[in-house]
Amino acid sequence: MRTVLVIGIGAGDPDHLTFQAVAAMRRADVFFGIDKGAVKDDLAALRGELLDRHVEGGYRVVDAPDPERDRDASGTAYRDAVLDWQDRRAGLYAAMIADELGPDGVGAFLVWGDPSLYDGTLRLLAGIREADVATGGEGFDIESVPGVSSVAALAAAHRLILNRVGGSVLVTTGRRLAAGMPRDVDDVVVMLDGATTFASLPDDDVAIYWGAYLGTPDEILVSGDLQKVKDEIVRVRARARERKGWIMDTYLLRRDPGRR
Amino acid sequence: MRTVLVIGIGAGDPDHLTFQAVAAMRRADVFFGIDKGAVKDDLAALRGELLDRHVEGGYRVVDAPDPERDRDASGTAYRDAVLDWQDRRAGLYAAMIADELGPDGVGAFLVWGDPSLYDGTLRLLAGIREADVATGGEGFDIESVPGVSSVAALAAAHRLILNRVGGSVLVTTGRRLAAGMPRDVDDVVVMLDGATTFASLPDDDVAIYWGAYLGTPDEILVSGDLQKVKDEIVRVRARARERKGWIMDTYLLRRDPGRR
Repeated sequence: MRTVLVIGIGAGDPDHLTFQAVAAMRRADVFFGIDKGAVKDDLAALRGELLDRHVEGGYRVVDAPDPERDRDASGTAYRDAVLDWQDRRAGLYAAMIADELGPDGVGAFLVWGDPSLYDGTLRLLAGIREADVATGGEGFDIESVPGVSSVAALAAAHRLILNRVGGSVLVTTGRRLAAGMPRDVDDVVVMLDGATTFASLPDDDVAIYWGAYLGTPDEILVSGDLQKVKDEIVRVRARARERKGWIMDTYLLRRDPGRR
Repeated sequence: MRTVLVIGIGAGDPDHLTFQAVAAMRRADVFFGIDKGAVKDDLAALRGELLDRHVEGGYRVVDAPDPERDRDASGTAYRDAVLDWQDRRAGLYAAMIADELGPDGVGAFLVWGDPSLYDGTLRLLAGIREADVATGGEGFDIESVPGVSSVAALAAAHRLILNRVGGSVLVTTGRRLAAGMPRDVDDVVVMLDGATTFASLPDDDVAIYWGAYLGTPDEILVSGDLQKVKDEIVRVRARARERKGWIMDTYLLRRDPGRR
């Protein structure tokens, strides 16, 4: 049976890698990559560094271009745009698996952070396997190797515990935060916020803990009262993004930050 | 300056350890432990295994007994009981740090999973440092090393992505879930549920993905429609807990599981 591994490689620091991830990398006959445009060079560099360091005797990488995606869609059109883009991506993945994996071959995807948070690879693979089996193929095994998420890296950089005593934590997106801080959760981690939504929140008594390029030499951290530091974060973020050509950032919003 | 490291060692699999965690372990002069009663033997065994494997030339461990805690409190009394127990625990930690760390000494706590989720160590240390500085001490540096959380381990074991496309994920406790599935979040990870709260939820069209002793040879996984598998989970859980003397489990509840 063919096997496809989805390996979490951590949030940017090569030393976020786990021993389990290294063992999984050593099982792979081929590494599948997706060309990510602007982010590509840094991503490819980290991947190359990890493979050079941990996989002896060389390795094989097969890359596919990332399909175009409508990034201007909003509302339900946003969801449709993402699903459409994922469907086209699935076609590329399916072709790579069919072309590159022998009967007992092992392929691997290296993904940022942890495969279970805001990464679509596992969903795509499950869909491809389903389609393969539905058309008479024998499918393939899927394995997921957990990693240090950018959420964990953010918390560590700020020495934070995400939850308060007995409390909940919501992990959400910038798009959803645009509707305002949720009423019944006081600790909110926000991912994928290209629009600096935090800066438009009117809330007082909310602290923000923000981080970009977490775990890398370019890591930037800003924290403080949301209303007092939001302009600084917007400024720092725009400058960093212009300099590097891309940015990955995340943050925690904490209501009533004085409470344990 | 003295330094205290809080090192996430992953959810139970020794290979969840990161290279960053190993580097941090090698910086420590002393490892602080807390006697956890029933869980103690397994916890101490994993800690010993990790230290034996990764820290050359021997290591020093100092243990303190864990203070008694009122586990029957509920409502606001629960929060007070946890805070009271953490305050007494803080006294023990403060004494260990004062007694065992020289002027530039490095101490370390090894914690399950990731230090930022439902682990109080960072909060206790911040409080101890504050009290130390307030009484004329020079305090100490605190560093946090992220790890693979039990949430990530649960997701990997079930090959799950926790969020749906563009959706949110709530991480909460069994106590809070007792009020019912939240209305506006469809993916809910539940920790610290000693009362099998899931079994009392009336909801249809909810899937559960449950795991215990994640990442260990004792790992148990059950998943399916909540109403169909809840009795099996309660049964399996009770049996496992009786056999081992303790259990650590977590689960995802997913409303409308057919949707991407």
